Amino acid sequence: AHVPYSPLRFSKDEMLQRSQQFYQLMNKRRSVRFISSKPVPREVIDNVIRTAGTAPSGAHTEPWTYVVVADPETKHMIREIVEEEEEVNYKQRMGEKWVGDLQRLRTNWVKDYLDTAPYLILIFKQIYGIHSSGKKKTHYYNEISVSISCGMLLAALQNAGLVTVTSTPLNCGPKLRVLLQRPANEKLLLLLPVGYPTEDATVPDLKRKNLEEIMVFV
Amino acid sequence: AHVPYSPLRFSKDEMLQRSQQFYQLMNKRRSVRFISSKPVPREVIDNVIRTAGTAPSGAHTEPWTYVVVADPETKHMIREIVEEEEEVNYKQRMGEKWVGDLQRLRTNWVKDYLDTAPYLILIFKQIYGIHSSGKKKTHYYNEISVSISCGMLLAALQNAGLVTVTSTPLNCGPKLRVLLQRPANEKLLLLLPVGYPTEDATVPDLKRKNLEEIMVFV
Ligand SMILES: Cc1cc2nc3c(=O)[nH]c(=O)nc-3n(C[C@H](O)[C@H](O)[C@H](O)COP(=O)(O)O)c2cc1C
Ligand SMILES: Cc1cc2nc3c(=O)[nH]c(=O)nc-3n(C[C@H](O)[C@H](O)[C@H](O)COP(=O)(O)O)c2cc1C
Repeated sequence: AHVPYSPLRFSKDEMLQRSQQFYQLMNKRRSVRFISSKPVPREVIDNVIRTAGTAPSGAHTEPWTYVVVADPETKHMIREIVEEEEEVNYKQRMGEKWVGDLQRLRTNWVKDYLDTAPYLILIFKQIYGIHSSGKKKTHYYNEISVSISCGMLLAALQNAGLVTVTSTPLNCGPKLRVLLQRPANEKLLLLLPVGYPTEDATVPDLKRKNLEEIMVFV
Repeated sequence: AHVPYSPLRFSKDEMLQRSQQFYQLMNKRRSVRFISSKPVPREVIDNVIRTAGTAPSGAHTEPWTYVVVADPETKHMIREIVEEEEEVNYKQRMGEKWVGDLQRLRTNWVKDYLDTAPYLILIFKQIYGIHSSGKKKTHYYNEISVSISCGMLLAALQNAGLVTVTSTPLNCGPKLRVLLQRPANEKLLLLLPVGYPTEDATVPDLKRKNLEEIMVFV
């Protein structure tokens, strides 16, 4: 069945103002790697995950699982898995060029935030689904859909005044999947530590491309 | 160089309220396939693309190009390319199962919105970059980064009261790349028609999974 669509209605002036304010808010987002242990209300986390769940997905498959880890022992086990693999990544797997490209970010394999952040959000993509009959269900474009959903999650975190760093722990997926007891159809896509920044948090002094560099008008 | 991070500061109550309001706004988003030809201020489009450009990206490569098409003739040429390929997709390439999975959405290969929408946004991922020396520059995780950026674009459109449908025109990438004169390192990821919904726009009567179905708390 199809139903009428109920549009939002803003005046031209409102649209202009809203689009500019939203840009300014999002433009203040930075990947923050120094996260305080100050507690964050659980309900805010629920709301940002709900927001991620409003994303579009290929053929409405909603192929995402958001695992939110608040338990300190589990966070520490995640840290051990990630740091062990990341040390090998930096020293061997990534190669000189990749490590060089990351130098100005000063990232390395030591990740205090995996212990200190009140929440770690591990985002799994469901590479296929399972029908009630047990048959496999195809998840078209699952990685794109889950990444779009993550973009909405990042917008929601920023809107709420929380920080994170979008991270892709190379080679840690299988161990983290087993630790968190996720089924075989789920693959780790991203790991986001979430909380407030520490008082003395710093960020790399990066510039963003301007509109002319990213948009072509025809 | 690293610089201090300037955090947003909201009280707990503000965070709760903001996270809930943002969820409610985003939850009203739907993929709309009936788009009016009513003009949309260009500045709003500029602001939503600027917002997309604030997304994180692997090693800060910003591997996205947003091609915004307002020219009616180019829109029509895009429509011809997409409908021709999509007819073959639906009749041959996608197979019975995929077409069946789309039945409740009632989508097919006829896409009026490619003519009627005031803007078509074609999102290209740069699968590699090019240094000023001419050497190739690796774009780590470019598809994930561009999809995250698209999630932020969708949030920005919804916030401004505009509609779109996230679409992946299967097999049209090479022809559209040539039509729009994009270089070989750019591959089409998504095509988003943007505008106001038509007065009588309808949407499939879909439900979204609830929080318990998408979140696991540890
Ligand atoms: C990666 C991706 C590809 C999609 N491809 C198409 C498409 O080619 N054509 C279309 O009409 N809708 C497409 N959609 C839209 C989905 O069908 C839609 O998001 C889903 O049915 C849920 O509906 P909603 O967006 O209204 O919540 C796509 C969505 C995503 C995320
Ligand atoms: C797909 C993706 C993967 C990333 N992987 C990592 C990572 O493993 N570790 C890390 O510290 N940052 C990672 N980042 C963060 C980027 O380095 C960061 O977004 C970029 O430097 C731009 O900075 P900004 O987010 O503050 O604008 C990743 C970002 C994206 C989008």
